[in-house]
Amino acid sequence: SDVAPSRCIIEGTKRVQCYRDGKDVYLPFDGFLKKQFDLTGRLINKGETDERFEYFTSYAKVRTPERLDYSPTAEFGNFRTYSVEFRDRVRCISAEYGVPMSTQWDTVPYFYPIQIAQYALQHYSRNVTDKAPKIVELEAEFDPSNGQKEVIADADGGLRLKLDPRPDFATISFSWKPADPSAAFSVTVEVLRLNKTITLIYKHVDDRRCVWAEGDVLSDTYGDGEDSPVNVEAKNKQELVFAYALGTSIDPSQFTTVVRDILVDTSKGLALVQLLPLTRKESSLPGGLKIGDVKLLSLSFSGRSTLKRPIRQMTSAHGEIFLRTADWFVTNQDEQGGWPVPVMRSIADNKLVLPAGWHSAMAQGHALSVLTRAYFLTKDIRYVNAAAASLSLFETPALEGGVMNKLFNHPWYEEYPTTPGSFVLNGFMYGLVGLYDFSTVIPHGNASKKLFDDGINSLKTFLPLYDTGFGSVYDLRHLGLKTAPNIARWDYHAVHIYLLKWLNTITNEKFFDEVAERWIGYATGKRAKHN
Amino acid sequence: SDVAPSRCIIEGTKRVQCYRDGKDVYLPFDGFLKKQFDLTGRLINKGETDERFEYFTSYAKVRTPERLDYSPTAEFGNFRTYSVEFRDRVRCISAEYGVPMSTQWDTVPYFYPIQIAQYALQHYSRNVTDKAPKIVELEAEFDPSNGQKEVIADADGGLRLKLDPRPDFATISFSWKPADPSAAFSVTVEVLRLNKTITLIYKHVDDRRCVWAEGDVLSDTYGDGEDSPVNVEAKNKQELVFAYALGTSIDPSQFTTVVRDILVDTSKGLALVQLLPLTRKESSLPGGLKIGDVKLLSLSFSGRSTLKRPIRQMTSAHGEIFLRTADWFVTNQDEQGGWPVPVMRSIADNKLVLPAGWHSAMAQGHALSVLTRAYFLTKDIRYVNAAAASLSLFETPALEGGVMNKLFNHPWYEEYPTTPGSFVLNGFMYGLVGLYDFSTVIPHGNASKKLFDDGINSLKTFLPLYDTGFGSVYDLRHLGLKTAPNIARWDYHAVHIYLLKWLNTITNEKFFDEVAERWIGYATGKRAKHN
Ligand SMILES: [Ca+2]
Ligand SMILES: [Ca+2]
Repeated sequence: SDVAPSRCIIEGTKRVQCYRDGKDVYLPFDGFLKKQFDLTGRLINKGETDERFEYFTSYAKVRTPERLDYSPTAEFGNFRTYSVEFRDRVRCISAEYGVPMSTQWDTVPYFYPIQIAQYALQHYSRNVTDKAPKIVELEAEFDPSNGQKEVIADADGGLRLKLDPRPDFATISFSWKPADPSAAFSVTVEVLRLNKTITLIYKHVDDRRCVWAEGDVLSDTYGDGEDSPVNVEAKNKQELVFAYALGTSIDPSQFTTVVRDILVDTSKGLALVQLLPLTRKESSLPGGLKIGDVKLLSLSFSGRSTLKRPIRQMTSAHGEIFLRTADWFVTNQDEQGGWPVPVMRSIADNKLVLPAGWHSAMAQGHALSVLTRAYFLTKDIRYVNAAAASLSLFETPALEGGVMNKLFNHPWYEEYPTTPGSFVLNGFMYGLVGLYDFSTVIPHGNASKKLFDDGINSLKTFLPLYDTGFGSVYDLRHLGLKTAPNIARWDYHAVHIYLLKWLNTITNEKFFDEVAERWIGYATGKRAKHN
Repeated sequence: SDVAPSRCIIEGTKRVQCYRDGKDVYLPFDGFLKKQFDLTGRLINKGETDERFEYFTSYAKVRTPERLDYSPTAEFGNFRTYSVEFRDRVRCISAEYGVPMSTQWDTVPYFYPIQIAQYALQHYSRNVTDKAPKIVELEAEFDPSNGQKEVIADADGGLRLKLDPRPDFATISFSWKPADPSAAFSVTVEVLRLNKTITLIYKHVDDRRCVWAEGDVLSDTYGDGEDSPVNVEAKNKQELVFAYALGTSIDPSQFTTVVRDILVDTSKGLALVQLLPLTRKESSLPGGLKIGDVKLLSLSFSGRSTLKRPIRQMTSAHGEIFLRTADWFVTNQDEQGGWPVPVMRSIADNKLVLPAGWHSAMAQGHALSVLTRAYFLTKDIRYVNAAAASLSLFETPALEGGVMNKLFNHPWYEEYPTTPGSFVLNGFMYGLVGLYDFSTVIPHGNASKKLFDDGINSLKTFLPLYDTGFGSVYDLRHLGLKTAPNIARWDYHAVHIYLLKWLNTITNEKFFDEVAERWIGYATGKRAKHN
């Protein structure tokens, strides 16, 4: 039948262009529906015979755990798909500590414990699931006097090692003992994509920038990539040098281990001078350099240091990276047993403010997941001690620096321990997973088990309040602030579903599965009934 | 630009017919959007140059109180727009008690205290806002021996009074003293719409049917109108007789007052034999007979009785009806101070069941609003005593027959005192209005004031939980039942808005107004933000 334009009047006021045929009235997707109902749609094969318009309620892919059971030594959730180091808000992997530094809420890079734990758990998970790395040992003139176990690089001319040119051997690892702060090492690579030679120099200085460009290249000081024009000097130069800070604290009697992913380190340098696009998309494929983009040329040492054999080049080093990061949690715990966030955080249009130094139940829980895995891997009691010392913050009220708020007299472990409480759902559930993980370290985890059980009871009590009938709320801030509810965007809704299924594998609590299934329905346009 | 059919694939599976032009893709309203998003729409002036499609999120008209202040002697909400007596679930106005009888949840008519109170408050409100009724006194041969104040209708031939033919004089009112149960009266009318003569006979019998057809006319026994075919005999007869039961309890020493709205009584008879369409639409204009449909012919008395002068015919009798109904609350209070609902009620797919005899905070609150107004009108202390005696049920837990459930240790006055609690919002707020009303009767209302204040605190605490970000929930049953939330349909959402504005006029609590304004926005398609 004929189709003709027709006017639609929305709520008595707004006009939009519609069509009408003999059967129905048709409303515009981009012109009205998309924004009104927060929808996703795209036209496929435009103009061809199989043209179609794909309509989705949620843009987010809903995932559920692959395993029906749960083990605190297995991979952690779907974190193996994370790429924490390539997130644009990660300025670099600290050369001094081997952990990511964030610029998310401050232009000066800082240690963000949640991000550091996710970095650890990502590498732990890949270590569990990925194939073992391929490794080559680099040749050097090792000293015959000690069984060819060491080589001394001295100030005169230094030591230069040729790197294996196979593109997937992008990680280098070695143990060295710098004699004094003048000792340094550097890696030179060719970036095929840009036709440039890049040198990364790692030196014993204290520099808050984490990574920076050397020479007469304008560098976006803190690398947030938002307020600097494309860097013309950097674009025109054939050779660029980026420096990483190793810190100035040296113990000349100790070997320390270095593990660097050269693709990551090169990417973070290039991003700094706007030579790589920054990606804004989290936990997807990296926006940085990929295997094949870079050819590793050489590893050089200057100043005086001793190197232990083997000096290795490898396709990955997930286990080493995990343990180095777990150690960060052991050596960076504060006197309350926490890993404080060193930047101020304000949420709810600045109605809720956490001054720098706050603790997060999500950080504490993630740390428990890291420390538990490190302990099971190494049986090193330091990890257990750190985990046990961290528990009291779960019982300490938000107003006293802890992560606990009472919600109608039930404990809630707060991702953001605000006053009044915000009761963020996903951070609470991550906290519970961490408490569960440590509770399996018998008998050290008994207090963790109690905190976990109490938290599960709270979750069972309050979970219905996060159900809007068409999606979920991110938190219950509206209880204290007396505002509209803070609807979870679809990717957080998907995280809620994943975590409920996850907790179901831990507790066998059918209710969590029922809610998860209903929420999966919401993500495909199902809605709760009205009366 | 050209418009052409295009296929839409909904959530990867369902196909619907769409259109596409050079600018956008257009989705079908009836074919998809209406049901998916619970929308309302209609095509206006189809095919004409000013054709338009009117799109609304909510089908319900949002109303707010006209007054910015509130007085417990002013009209009650917008109840003056109610037509309780014409609701199809009101079988009839009991001739014995002068109050409506319901068939909503049982086929046998029963007293439903919420409905009875709404009937009282409707007439109270109309008495406040409407013009005074026009009244004529019927002529009769009053006895000169007592100053022409009385007339005796005796068994021989009886007394027949001609009625005023003006169509708006549809209510009759008189006081009489029947000598024995054989005394009766009847009203004969002509229904112009149907061209039939109808006689309504009011007699001293006990009959559970409230109203019924006499003679050889098939009568839908309990008048629910749902399981009987159109009544052919009734359709073909020129004269029909319907009977109303006055009960058999007679005090021959007492005059009793009769007030009957003949339009209502005729309508309820005709509905019984399917000669009038039953309306399913509540609180809108009656589906029964309207002024002008009926011509009143005569009022007759049979058996022996004494009538007091004046015998009146009037355009309305709101004040009399209100007080007669208020008296029902005084004389029908149970030993707990309540007005029990005599039928079983089950909600939430029978997961929550209230056995017959349950109390409702909505009934109790409405009763307080009725009794407070009756007291202010008459200064009769019986109304205060009944109100005071009713308060303890607000403090009595649901499990002990009261109307109170604790919600996280805060009291909630339950419209349906289920276990676990259902926490219906609108009934709670009506209960609060009733408590407030009686709290203004100083000093008798002090306990009522305390209950009101406690309830307002609970409302302030929990109101955010009723906000879904796109509408409101009807109750919090999902907290106890662990189910999906029970979304309020749009007319209940509008009731929530009205009541929040109403409580704002009582308390000056800005929060109630903020929520009401946000919820008005939801009814016109606004939605809370996601993060
Ligand atoms: Ca910058
Ligand atoms: Ca029937």
